[in-house]
Amino acid sequence: MNVAIVGVGLIGGSIGIAARERLGARVRGFDARSDVVEEALAMGAIDAGAERLAAAVEDAAVAFVATPIAAVPGVVQQVLAAAPPDCVVSDVGSTKQAILQATNDQRFVGGHPLAGGEGAGVGLARADMFEGATWYLTPAGHTSGVLYERLHRLLAALGARPAAIDAAAHDRLMACVSHLPHVLANVLVGQASDTVGALGEESPAGPRDVRAVFAGGAPGPSFRDATRVAGANSSIWTDIYLSNREELIPCLTGAIEALGAVRDMLDDGEAEPLRRWNERARSDRDRLARPESAGEEAHELRVMVPNRPGVIAEIALALGRAGVNISDMALSPSPDGSRGVVALWVRGPGQAADAQELVAALGFQVVAR
Amino acid sequence: MNVAIVGVGLIGGSIGIAARERLGARVRGFDARSDVVEEALAMGAIDAGAERLAAAVEDAAVAFVATPIAAVPGVVQQVLAAAPPDCVVSDVGSTKQAILQATNDQRFVGGHPLAGGEGAGVGLARADMFEGATWYLTPAGHTSGVLYERLHRLLAALGARPAAIDAAAHDRLMACVSHLPHVLANVLVGQASDTVGALGEESPAGPRDVRAVFAGGAPGPSFRDATRVAGANSSIWTDIYLSNREELIPCLTGAIEALGAVRDMLDDGEAEPLRRWNERARSDRDRLARPESAGEEAHELRVMVPNRPGVIAEIALALGRAGVNISDMALSPSPDGSRGVVALWVRGPGQAADAQELVAALGFQVVAR
Repeated sequence: MNVAIVGVGLIGGSIGIAARERLGARVRGFDARSDVVEEALAMGAIDAGAERLAAAVEDAAVAFVATPIAAVPGVVQQVLAAAPPDCVVSDVGSTKQAILQATNDQRFVGGHPLAGGEGAGVGLARADMFEGATWYLTPAGHTSGVLYERLHRLLAALGARPAAIDAAAHDRLMACVSHLPHVLANVLVGQASDTVGALGEESPAGPRDVRAVFAGGAPGPSFRDATRVAGANSSIWTDIYLSNREELIPCLTGAIEALGAVRDMLDDGEAEPLRRWNERARSDRDRLARPESAGEEAHELRVMVPNRPGVIAEIALALGRAGVNISDMALSPSPDGSRGVVALWVRGPGQAADAQELVAALGFQVVAR
Repeated sequence: MNVAIVGVGLIGGSIGIAARERLGARVRGFDARSDVVEEALAMGAIDAGAERLAAAVEDAAVAFVATPIAAVPGVVQQVLAAAPPDCVVSDVGSTKQAILQATNDQRFVGGHPLAGGEGAGVGLARADMFEGATWYLTPAGHTSGVLYERLHRLLAALGARPAAIDAAAHDRLMACVSHLPHVLANVLVGQASDTVGALGEESPAGPRDVRAVFAGGAPGPSFRDATRVAGANSSIWTDIYLSNREELIPCLTGAIEALGAVRDMLDDGEAEPLRRWNERARSDRDRLARPESAGEEAHELRVMVPNRPGVIAEIALALGRAGVNISDMALSPSPDGSRGVVALWVRGPGQAADAQELVAALGFQVVAR
């Protein structure tokens, strides 16, 4: 199968490596920067580079547009103009409505893999980038069924979980679960920075250093977790915010209103409304954190572990041997890195009870949340 | 050394285990719930339980109040009434101004360890809970230097990093780096839940399940990280929000204004202001995440001080404001008790030089050893 990649960065390069390694595909790449094509060739992300976009796609069965999002609509049209009549064309942009409005070609299917957040550039590309990752697809009424199916099977073969969704629903959802968290992370570091600055101005001993405020320690895990994505790659994220502004603006309005309601509750000083609000957040979180679509509910276990090699593998293998499937996990290290808490999600009350017993038998403290 | 713990939960129990294991302390515990005392005894968090609060503290050298925060001011007063005249009394509440306003007893030092966020209950208590964790202390002008030093050394021996800070600065800082992230986590899950609900109502296929919207996958790491603390223990957090509402309200106002500014930028649709805003977040984040000088060698300073209340607090706060962390301290009174020598250890030659200058500026004789 011939696969074309236009824009050979982190995502494009990873598609190339995975398609070559897992499908034996022949991958041709084009990038506006020729040095990027050379790097991709050198690391085996593509079989061949093309000097012009048209040459990359002219004999492709599948073509991916993986450029920065602002360029996607224009590049998709160029690819559709040059690609064969039976080539399925997709993209990997984080917002989908603007791109769909740019074409009604039956060969085009919008796409968005939930992967690659950790960096940029083909140098970080890897074959298992999409293993287990949701890969949204936004087929339209005019989309060719044959071509959609080809794309779906190819993505599953790359290890991803393709999932069809309306483009509008996708964009509204992403505004809320990805773009808003990024905005809030930026707001949080700004607030913290302003507060530290203000404390410094008030200090009789003169300007106060950040280290003084944090007493040489971490400012707490909730802050660290919530600000991990603060100031993410500016060129990528400026494009994302702008391309999805029609969904993000009402989402910001909703967040502003919700914060205003919390402020009102604090002004009133009554415990019960705050408690109810917090309980609602707990049930929302539990509902949203449910990671699997299989019938049973996910149960969360928290395990205290020392931070040494092999601990996570030990737990995973013990559960695996007993037939308990870990559907998701998250590791939060302690401030000094010497130990941590592993959150594990397993499906069904029976498996949860088994998991708790197995982990306890390994000598770790474990509680069901 | 006799240590009293009033309120034997996750934090109180961990203080007990650590004091017994690391210091050979004899720990007596009191809790309003007798079953909690029994659990603490069974797991070795305390040596003995007391049936009345007064019996727990009557021969203590150090007493910790580790009850829910709403109860702390009242319990601190009961402990001070029952404790010996040379017992240092501290608490572990997440906000500090309200507690300080409840007493001006020279034996009391407000405290707040940044630890224990992962759960509740003595069942999760462990000896290394405070290893490497910042433990804020809020000494006041009337605080006894001898008793402050005893507490500081005990906390360092538990593995913590005691750090003096003004109570007001502490509460403003926590509003910003702990309480606001918790509020935002709740807001985020609420927004996501509302969005999913609205998408369901609009779906021609009928009510849409959350799992369908997330396509069986996680909604992305930024959402998971930002919502990990959503709906944290309602009884603990309702108290925290209310006890710090005077600092949290302006912090929420700041966040609302910041979100409004982002909304305005999106309305305008210009890339450059968004890019600058995101770049500022990046530099704020880098500054706040700056690692500290943990690995550096400890330098010892000796300070001659008069033996009057407030001297140790004055020195600790002056160094704290300037970002100099005291890793250990020891107080040696002169034979007639009129003055004494405080030995201070700080890490790194730069901090040592800063500390020497700051202490000299307070009018005390100081030498580097």
